[in-house]
Amino acid sequence: MSLSNENLKHQLYVIIFGTHTKAGKIFDIALIIAIFTSLTILVLGSIPSISAQWSNELRLIEYGFTALFTIEYLTRLYCSPKPSAYAKSFYGVIDLVAILPTYLVILFPSASFMGVIRALRVMRIFRILKLVRYLQDSNMLLRSLLGARRKIIIFFSTVAILVTILGSFIYVIEGPEHGFTSIPQSIYWAIVTITTVGYGDVVPQTTLGKGVAALTMLLGYSILAVPTGIITAELHQEMNAHRALVKCPNCSLSGHESDALFCKHCGSELADPDKRVVPVESEKKN
Amino acid sequence: MSLSNENLKHQLYVIIFGTHTKAGKIFDIALIIAIFTSLTILVLGSIPSISAQWSNELRLIEYGFTALFTIEYLTRLYCSPKPSAYAKSFYGVIDLVAILPTYLVILFPSASFMGVIRALRVMRIFRILKLVRYLQDSNMLLRSLLGARRKIIIFFSTVAILVTILGSFIYVIEGPEHGFTSIPQSIYWAIVTITTVGYGDVVPQTTLGKGVAALTMLLGYSILAVPTGIITAELHQEMNAHRALVKCPNCSLSGHESDALFCKHCGSELADPDKRVVPVESEKKN
Amino acid sequence: MSLSNENLKHQLYVIIFGTHTKAGKIFDIALIIAIFTSLTILVLGSIPSISAQWSNELRLIEYGFTALFTIEYLTRLYCSPKPSAYAKSFYGVIDLVAILPTYLVILFPSASFMGVIRALRVMRIFRILKLVRYLQDSNMLLRSLLGARRKIIIFFSTVAILVTILGSFIYVIEGPEHGFTSIPQSIYWAIVTITTVGYGDVVPQTTLGKGVAALTMLLGYSILAVPTGIITAELHQEMNAHRALVKCPNCSLSGHESDALFCKHCGSELADPDKRVVPVESEKKN
Amino acid sequence: MSLSNENLKHQLYVIIFGTHTKAGKIFDIALIIAIFTSLTILVLGSIPSISAQWSNELRLIEYGFTALFTIEYLTRLYCSPKPSAYAKSFYGVIDLVAILPTYLVILFPSASFMGVIRALRVMRIFRILKLVRYLQDSNMLLRSLLGARRKIIIFFSTVAILVTILGSFIYVIEGPEHGFTSIPQSIYWAIVTITTVGYGDVVPQTTLGKGVAALTMLLGYSILAVPTGIITAELHQEMNAHRALVKCPNCSLSGHESDALFCKHCGSELADPDKRVVPVESEKKN
Repeated sequence: MSLSNENLKHQLYVIIFGTHTKAGKIFDIALIIAIFTSLTILVLGSIPSISAQWSNELRLIEYGFTALFTIEYLTRLYCSPKPSAYAKSFYGVIDLVAILPTYLVILFPSASFMGVIRALRVMRIFRILKLVRYLQDSNMLLRSLLGARRKIIIFFSTVAILVTILGSFIYVIEGPEHGFTSIPQSIYWAIVTITTVGYGDVVPQTTLGKGVAALTMLLGYSILAVPTGIITAELHQEMNAHRALVKCPNCSLSGHESDALFCKHCGSELADPDKRVVPVESEKKN
Repeated sequence: MSLSNENLKHQLYVIIFGTHTKAGKIFDIALIIAIFTSLTILVLGSIPSISAQWSNELRLIEYGFTALFTIEYLTRLYCSPKPSAYAKSFYGVIDLVAILPTYLVILFPSASFMGVIRALRVMRIFRILKLVRYLQDSNMLLRSLLGARRKIIIFFSTVAILVTILGSFIYVIEGPEHGFTSIPQSIYWAIVTITTVGYGDVVPQTTLGKGVAALTMLLGYSILAVPTGIITAELHQEMNAHRALVKCPNCSLSGHESDALFCKHCGSELADPDKRVVPVESEKKN
Repeated sequence: MSLSNENLKHQLYVIIFGTHTKAGKIFDIALIIAIFTSLTILVLGSIPSISAQWSNELRLIEYGFTALFTIEYLTRLYCSPKPSAYAKSFYGVIDLVAILPTYLVILFPSASFMGVIRALRVMRIFRILKLVRYLQDSNMLLRSLLGARRKIIIFFSTVAILVTILGSFIYVIEGPEHGFTSIPQSIYWAIVTITTVGYGDVVPQTTLGKGVAALTMLLGYSILAVPTGIITAELHQEMNAHRALVKCPNCSLSGHESDALFCKHCGSELADPDKRVVPVESEKKN
Repeated sequence: MSLSNENLKHQLYVIIFGTHTKAGKIFDIALIIAIFTSLTILVLGSIPSISAQWSNELRLIEYGFTALFTIEYLTRLYCSPKPSAYAKSFYGVIDLVAILPTYLVILFPSASFMGVIRALRVMRIFRILKLVRYLQDSNMLLRSLLGARRKIIIFFSTVAILVTILGSFIYVIEGPEHGFTSIPQSIYWAIVTITTVGYGDVVPQTTLGKGVAALTMLLGYSILAVPTGIITAELHQEMNAHRALVKCPNCSLSGHESDALFCKHCGSELADPDKRVVPVESEKKN
């Protein structure tokens, strides 16, 4: 047997975790198809007319996918250089959560509602976004959101405080007879209104209540501008920072478009965007 | 006969496809009027009180417009230097789609629902946007959207994943008795909520369901900021890039307003904005 | 009589049209109070319980205000250096429209619905925004909107084309039995959905219709980003342009905050922002 | 007794108002827990099923918290260097408002609706946002909003004028028989529509009314872009201004990320962000 154990492990690792080899790409595509098919099965099973007729077939297919994903999970554990690190990672947890509910439903048939947790399988799709070119843009978006995290926390604290106050006041103004049965229900109304969703299941009836509602809407309408402003300003900075990073190897000009392949001044080829190492700035941050 | 065949073809081409000659402008205006009139006929035909009384008249007018557009389409095919290229182009397909449904309804009277495809005629209006000065701004918007396409794909994938998860959970929490009859129906609710549309035809009734709804709204409210941030940052870059392109022929200063006709420093006339060639950057891109 | 006719005219002009003298300010404040009071009368008259009891009193007060505004209008005409230019100006038309409906209702009592046109009086409030410091910011907002006008026209044309197509398709898919009684009604639904208003008075019932609705929402959700991006980018440019205009008289540094009174580097006083003449750029534009 | 009165006062001040000592942090955390618990009591008391059973227990706990907050308020007054300044400050008023309603309800049992004013206690949470690192970002957001205040006032005046006109017109078009019972009610509808909330409790029924509604929606949809543009442009400027302020003590380079701890060029430690004094720019402003 020419393939040593370690060699097999590495080969499996390259196929399952890697994206650059041909086998790795085929594996990724097969996995995506499997995820989408299993999600379709889950969705079909929730439609009464279909589940009534095909209940058994759907369950059998689901068992098949769970078996497949279990084998995949065990293989990932096996070929991972640090199995415990994989198991604790974001994707490791998602991979486990994608298979566990089926086993739980088999063990405890009464807990059939847990089957819906399989919907979290859809998060495995995020892996695709990690593929090739999308990685960079995805990181840029994430960095912008992280860079703005404190402003976003302040924003949401302000929204939370506003809906608590507005909800409490509308509760006293309108009262249970107009559908504002309790403060939590009224806070729910305030969230529905301030986010401009406006279901219309609970609406103020009194003139004063309508005044508070109008105020809530205008507040929501205008503070919507704040997160947008935050993200835009961060993203703008992030994009400028990124442009400054890529330099032409010939004339060392920077400031190229994020998807430029050639220097816009001298025309020499820029480093491949997938190989460019974007310096991780997290060390500098606290 | 002094007009040779080739000459006629070219003259027709200048009139039909061009926008700079007087005849070309008259043709464009006549076409716009014809498109709007035929759309009005289509819309009027859908109003019960009108279609009941004028059914035959509306059909005859529609036949007239279809005949006109058919002649136009054949002429475009005839005078186009490369007829097959025109037929396969975006506008070629739209021009064909604008006339085909009427013939199909004549052939298969039962397929009367296909008549609505004529509404796609409205897309021919996009041709107007190609006229003169609007071209540049239209291109700038398109380039911004294209430049941001990967970030937009990532954003919509994230939204798709979110609504799948939120829809599945609300389906289990609320269940068919509160209108969440299946997972697709619940995903539809999640889209209605996350986009802040909020029809109110299906609303959560339980406390836990309202909590998930509030979370969905706040998520939708805040992630709305992300595409705005993306487009704004791209557009800003695009506008700066554009300003740098136009240079004063006298003092060679750049950075003029996009609609400036004279250099803001020395006052000499800038090149006509319609004749300025904006370098196509798509070659540089992948 | 020491006051000549010309002198009186000029003094009236300074009081009525000007804002810098004490008498001018008192006149402006009195006018604002009169406008708001007359609007309150209009609003009160529309509330059934109040109009039933105070109908005559309200009408008499309204006659009083109309008389006042008529005197004001005639005085403006009289003291204006060019009466015809004033009468044709935006504010001249608004001033006339603010008094005309009352006379029309007196002449033709059956046309009482015209009384509501008096609501346009509220537009006279725009005059306040012209006062002192707000002028500059108001101009900056207007210039940004004007600078972006072509992009905004392209955007709204695209929205108009989209709602026509989406409305026509949903009309065929859902049909009159689900409330989509005609194409105009369905286009109205498409506008309600694409703007994320979502009344919920007409909602799709079929699965295919819900799919089209979800697409419409996501389209509306994402293209909302486009006008925001346009305005933000224009406003940003406008603010930068403005900052470049104000120079320190001592060290000639530019780039000051829009409300800075002193040079941020040498501390010398900047020109009074109300006296700074912002060069009108419209001559340069086409 | 080694602790002098002044010393005790100062020690209490450091604990209650300060955030840097260990005792101060413990006090802050205890206060936050107390605020949230008392809010939970208020919310629980509004749920019929809970208040019916636990009415007395909830009232007793509320009395306990009011006693605690009263002691805290008096201690703040005592240890504050200028008690009257504290009592008149924003947080002084909030602290008083947080305890007053309970006493008022004890004195005048009929005024039980005033109990809801206790919901304003949630505003004390803003104190947390003042803690450490969040201070800077919170100030940046506030400065952006203040810097844009005139543009925001112009924007809201325009919205107020628009909804008055649109509301008055829809009142005449639709009339009381379609739910538009008065002009205030119609203005309320216009606000619901222009902010894209869209409850759907009052909707236009006539074709003309639907046209006005569609116009209102599109107006709301597009002018939503204006405040976003204003805030984004201000925030962008604010962030750039901030970056220019922090200089590396070694190579005096500026333009560091807002959360950088080390100079990005020479790596020397930057001044602690909490100790950096951001120059107060309000003196320069008018």
